[in-house]
Amino acid sequence: MKHRASLTRIYLPAGFRFSAGLAGLKASGLPDLAFVEAAPGTKAAAVFTKNRVVAAPLEVGRAHLAKTRGGVRAVIVNSGNANCATGQSGLRACRRICDEVANLLRIELEQVFPSSTGIIGVPLPAQKVIAKLARLLDDRSATEQGVHRFARAIMTTDTRPKLASARLRFGNGHVNLLGIAKGSGMIHPQLATMLVYLFTDLTAPPAELRRLLKTVCDQTFNCISVDGDTSTNDTVLLLASGESGIRLSEAGIRIRFQKALVEVCQSLAQQIVCDGEGVQHVIRLRIEQAKNQDEALRIARAIAHSLLVKTAWAGADPNWGRILAAVGASGVALDPRRVTISIGNQPVCRHGLSCKFDRRRAHAEMSKPSYEIRVRLGRGRAAASYLTADLTAEYVRINADYST
Amino acid sequence: MKHRASLTRIYLPAGFRFSAGLAGLKASGLPDLAFVEAAPGTKAAAVFTKNRVVAAPLEVGRAHLAKTRGGVRAVIVNSGNANCATGQSGLRACRRICDEVANLLRIELEQVFPSSTGIIGVPLPAQKVIAKLARLLDDRSATEQGVHRFARAIMTTDTRPKLASARLRFGNGHVNLLGIAKGSGMIHPQLATMLVYLFTDLTAPPAELRRLLKTVCDQTFNCISVDGDTSTNDTVLLLASGESGIRLSEAGIRIRFQKALVEVCQSLAQQIVCDGEGVQHVIRLRIEQAKNQDEALRIARAIAHSLLVKTAWAGADPNWGRILAAVGASGVALDPRRVTISIGNQPVCRHGLSCKFDRRRAHAEMSKPSYEIRVRLGRGRAAASYLTADLTAEYVRINADYST
Repeated sequence: MKHRASLTRIYLPAGFRFSAGLAGLKASGLPDLAFVEAAPGTKAAAVFTKNRVVAAPLEVGRAHLAKTRGGVRAVIVNSGNANCATGQSGLRACRRICDEVANLLRIELEQVFPSSTGIIGVPLPAQKVIAKLARLLDDRSATEQGVHRFARAIMTTDTRPKLASARLRFGNGHVNLLGIAKGSGMIHPQLATMLVYLFTDLTAPPAELRRLLKTVCDQTFNCISVDGDTSTNDTVLLLASGESGIRLSEAGIRIRFQKALVEVCQSLAQQIVCDGEGVQHVIRLRIEQAKNQDEALRIARAIAHSLLVKTAWAGADPNWGRILAAVGASGVALDPRRVTISIGNQPVCRHGLSCKFDRRRAHAEMSKPSYEIRVRLGRGRAAASYLTADLTAEYVRINADYST
Repeated sequence: MKHRASLTRIYLPAGFRFSAGLAGLKASGLPDLAFVEAAPGTKAAAVFTKNRVVAAPLEVGRAHLAKTRGGVRAVIVNSGNANCATGQSGLRACRRICDEVANLLRIELEQVFPSSTGIIGVPLPAQKVIAKLARLLDDRSATEQGVHRFARAIMTTDTRPKLASARLRFGNGHVNLLGIAKGSGMIHPQLATMLVYLFTDLTAPPAELRRLLKTVCDQTFNCISVDGDTSTNDTVLLLASGESGIRLSEAGIRIRFQKALVEVCQSLAQQIVCDGEGVQHVIRLRIEQAKNQDEALRIARAIAHSLLVKTAWAGADPNWGRILAAVGASGVALDPRRVTISIGNQPVCRHGLSCKFDRRRAHAEMSKPSYEIRVRLGRGRAAASYLTADLTAEYVRINADYST
């Protein structure tokens, strides 16, 4: 989808140094290594894919976080190879890379957090990565340039880097928040994954960071879908260096920081959907009058995953019957006679029945790059928002392209 | 998908007369009315869509079957209009048509079973149908021609009629079985639905027919998917006229009849998938070594509904990483290190890891119009077969075509 990148200002959180490099893992020859050093005392929390098939770096990263109780001093990312379905040798390759980073920085192996994204089922050539680590680490800097190079190096089929940032003032001090993401639907042939790194200079214990991250992810990254596929490498990592001297536990901080974190994550989530493969329209589903949040999300997912709905969106076709049928097939025991559907601000179906509407206006609304569809269930007071996209012939072309 | 129609011989069950007509409901001007008269004493059972949004004819048909305890004397079908999301006036339109059929045949209103398929949310012009009923009923005949005309009149985006038939000899007598179906994935813009009519001259009480039909549907029509969407009008109706004089309850009959019914339904199911919108490859998923049938089906559905898997199939790409990722995302708590995947008879992934395989041979296998993919889970002894298809740019074009 063509549109201006979100050119937000970057607020660099104190305590992080960024760099990028090239190990030759991508056929394109573009940068494929990204690195962050975090100041001593940095605490971290992560959420991982729910897929039962989990890539080697996720297993290693999870174990490292457990061992250090959330102490992270370095993040090493490669793109171009997911190191997934690679067995014991994949785990060894991942640990060897972490070990070399630890040696160069004189930190513990377990303080290194690894990520990979790219092709599944191909051995990761660890030696290629290791050969470039010294230079990669030497290049690290606490600069905007470093951040931008990091954001580009983690891209796979992404067409642009994804960044969002915020600054909060508290008394005389301030807290900075920076998010960097990659993700483009799920994939080019065998390439996968959403990776998100969130950096702040707030001070917070890992248990607090975990709770916060879980809450925020449920409202943001768990409410988007391009193709409904779940990657084997999805990771969201939140790092808090503590360098601002401001504590999450201080009065008035938590609510504002959580709000800022939601905004940054929402921006990154939106950038991911907008950059989805073949996406021409981004649709914000707003499910209202549900009994609870769970059923609102269940209905949103049923709509977002219906091929018939997604293809109608590609044609800007105000075909509300398909939306109603997807709602009915969601598994929620609702009464369709209470369902009302609006496209933009125009109702197209009232109480489960066709209602007179201006088809030309609906078609014009659906021809915009992004718009809202509201579904009211008449069951209760819960609501949910969900960001998704149309399914175009271009998506099929990208993903059906035989690659050998 | 281009291939020869299944030109099976038709065995006409005694006690049924077929006809077709034209009420002008389809923009194409093709036949859109289909009718069957069943002999007095005919017993019936039906299964309906699980969608909560249910079309008027399903509500009426279900109530009629309950009222007559499975006694059906006539089936009236229209294509070109689903009579769904049409509210009270839709129910009235459906009952008016049934009432007119009942008057013409001098039977009870509740002995008439209605079906509709076509566009959702548009009022059914009952008068157009009623005006053609006398002629439609006059034309009925117990002939192959009548059957073929019936099969064509219920089509919407189907490119060919779908028929399957069987004859069973028992002592000196025989039982005939005939199935007629329509369905093409789910749809053209706003058109929907799988309709299946099964006719036999066996004698059986409705309760037995219901049990039989439920069992057979679970093994056949519930194991196929083109686009994963659930129609609001899906109906499978089994009618037993009893005219053969042979009873389902007689020794040795039940097992053979059930087997024949499975074969007829499997053939119809396969014809529906092959005729799916934009389908170029039909894939038989064989899930083995599952703990139970439920989890085998759950994994089959996860694979069959993954856009990334379906698009890889369109490109004949032996991209087993996507299949493994879909298995991992199915929600079944399996160990990926026990999963083995074969394309045709060639393993491409062993114990969750890449294994050496001939990519050219795998690509050649996947270039066939139909082939098998086998997934072994290493968890138990249950297995399931599931029929599905690739997702092509043609599917998107058909369904994204803005229609107003």
